[in-house]
Parts: sequence; C-alpha cells; structure tokens
Amino acid sequence: MTETADNGVNVQALLDARKAFEDAPEAAECRWQATCEWKNGTHSRSVVEGFYGLGQSQTRKTVFEFDADHPEVFASEDKGATPTEILLVGLASCLTAGIASIAQHRGIQLRSVKAQIEGDIDLQGMLGMDEEDRSGFRDIRVSFEIDADANREDIEALVAQAQKRSAVFDIVANPTNVDVTVK
Amino acid sequence: MTETADNGVNVQALLDARKAFEDAPEAAECRWQATCEWKNGTHSRSVVEGFYGLGQSQTRKTVFEFDADHPEVFASEDKGATPTEILLVGLASCLTAGIASIAQHRGIQLRSVKAQIEGDIDLQGMLGMDEEDRSGFRDIRVSFEIDADANREDIEALVAQAQKRSAVFDIVANPTNVDVTVK
Repeated sequence: MTETADNGVNVQALLDARKAFEDAPEAAECRWQATCEWKNGTHSRSVVEGFYGLGQSQTRKTVFEFDADHPEVFASEDKGATPTEILLVGLASCLTAGIASIAQHRGIQLRSVKAQIEGDIDLQGMLGMDEEDRSGFRDIRVSFEIDADANREDIEALVAQAQKRSAVFDIVANPTNVDVTVK
Repeated sequence: MTETADNGVNVQALLDARKAFEDAPEAAECRWQATCEWKNGTHSRSVVEGFYGLGQSQTRKTVFEFDADHPEVFASEDKGATPTEILLVGLASCLTAGIASIAQHRGIQLRSVKAQIEGDIDLQGMLGMDEEDRSGFRDIRVSFEIDADANREDIEALVAQAQKRSAVFDIVANPTNVDVTVK
C-alpha cells in the first residue's frame, strides 16, 4: 500500500458529505432521472440531464444521450445497444467507480481496472412462450482484472466492499419497487 | 385500431422466432455482454459490441461506447451519466421497445411514446452510514405519455403487457443473481 495513492477520487469530499449528512440527513436524499422518447420500431433515445441532490435541483454542463435498439439478427436496426446491455453497463460502471473510491480510501494505488460482464437470458421468457421462464437475466457474471499496489487478498476485499456499497448491484440483486403509470 | 398499423416493428420475424424456438429451445439462449475500463476517479468507459444469440456469437457493424461518472457536486468530473441514471435508461428503453412491439402485434398505431423515469436514493446507504438504508433505489417511477390510435383502456393494457414482458423490468423488480469475481 502507498500512503500517497492517487486514483483521482476526492475522498475528503466524500467524508465531508458523510459528516454533513449526519447533521442533515435530508440532504442525502437524491433523485436520479431520465427521459426516453420512442423513435421507430424498437429504437428509442433517452436523455439524462438534471437530477435532485444535496437539497436542490442540479443541472449539468453536459446532456447525455443514449440510443437503444435491438440488433439486426432480431429483425431490428441496431441503432443502439439493447436495454439489457445498457443495464450491464450501469452495473459494471457502478462497481468500478466503487472500486476506485474505496481503493483511494484504503490507500491502494490502482493502475488498471477492467471488468467483463455478461448475463444469460432465455428469449422464451420475453416472448411469453413459457410463464415459468423469467424475462430477465437468469445469471449475471462480472469478472474483474485489477492491477494495483495491493496483494490479492486486499484486492478481493476491495471488490467485495464495492459490491456491498454499489447502488446498481443492490438494485439488480434485490427486489426494487417500480411503479409504471400512464399519464 | 387500424389494420395497417406500422410502428416499424417486424412482428412476423418475432412470431417466426417464437415458432423456431418451439422446435429448438436452445436457440433462445442469449448472452449479452459488455466490458468496462476504469479511466480515473469515478470515470469509466464501457463498450458493447458482440453478443451470443440464435445459437452463435454475433457481431455488429457498430460499437457502442458509454462513459460513466459522478456529477461535479459529488466532487467528480461529470464525464458521463451516473451508473444509476444508466440503469434508468435501460429500464425506460426496454419498456418503450416492448410498447412498440406489442402495439404492432395488437394493430395499434403509435404516434408518440414518451417516458419520464426517476428513482430515489438515500446516499447514506451508499456511504455506509446506516446498514438499514439500502444502497440502491427505494422506488422507481415511470410515467408514460402515449399518443396512439387506441383508447385509454387499450393503452393501459399495452403498457401493462410491456411491463410483464420487459427483461430489464424483471431484472430490477425481482432478485437477480450476480456473481462478482476477481481474475
């Protein structure tokens, strides 16, 4: 371990936030949002811009856009990643950000972090062929390859802690309430 | 309802796939994948390219890239959407693709489909301040605004069916097994 690890994460700001939330827990309430507009077929475009956090609506300098579609072999136009692939990106990037943050907090210098993520789906579920088959992933596997100033045990502990704190891991691994309504 | 609804969805191909899977269920096995590489701080870049489906590895003409990061007010550099926002995009776009596909199957002509999606998180969970607080969304709300050649009842039934068949809805609403390992 190095005493001068620099993974580009401002741990002091996170510790300050923690302290601030102890005095004012309501400031920890956060609302993330996106809009999605249908284009044609299975193609849609989503926009991520504002959010609510630290007690107020927040804006950004950048607007993030996402095209989603299905691939050509599924008779679509492949104008974007499939929604299930987008979910995998959310999960892998959440775990990765957690690894960087926790490594910084533990004084572990990272050199590289790479994740391969995959998930298995039986399309019979999505097509409603068998009510027993679920529509979503049966299993998701994430494999990390990490080069860091730490031994294997510390790297495994780092990944375990990132998994424990990851918002997206929690959402995927545990049931999350989703209300879908029509205006 | 129109008899000539055209939402750009090839329903015949989906019905053909269904029929093919009845004869060869193993062809319905699909594996979606992504890779994620840490850049600096909470910033990572993910790539979506190949997948496995219809009995073989599939490639695409396009590679889809995703930057993920945390916003500046959380002491990060905002180089991409947050992973939780990316998950919301996956969910909204999955439901939207389902709405278009099911509308086509039911002969409902869509004119526009817009979704607003939001989810609430208490950051105290992610920061490990209280083991009782979960890290992920407490609640997700999706609100659809749909202009279509159908009455309100048919539109609500359409959205309900899309929710029932959506892979990402299933993954988020129900527990999904995730194995995280270190190479």
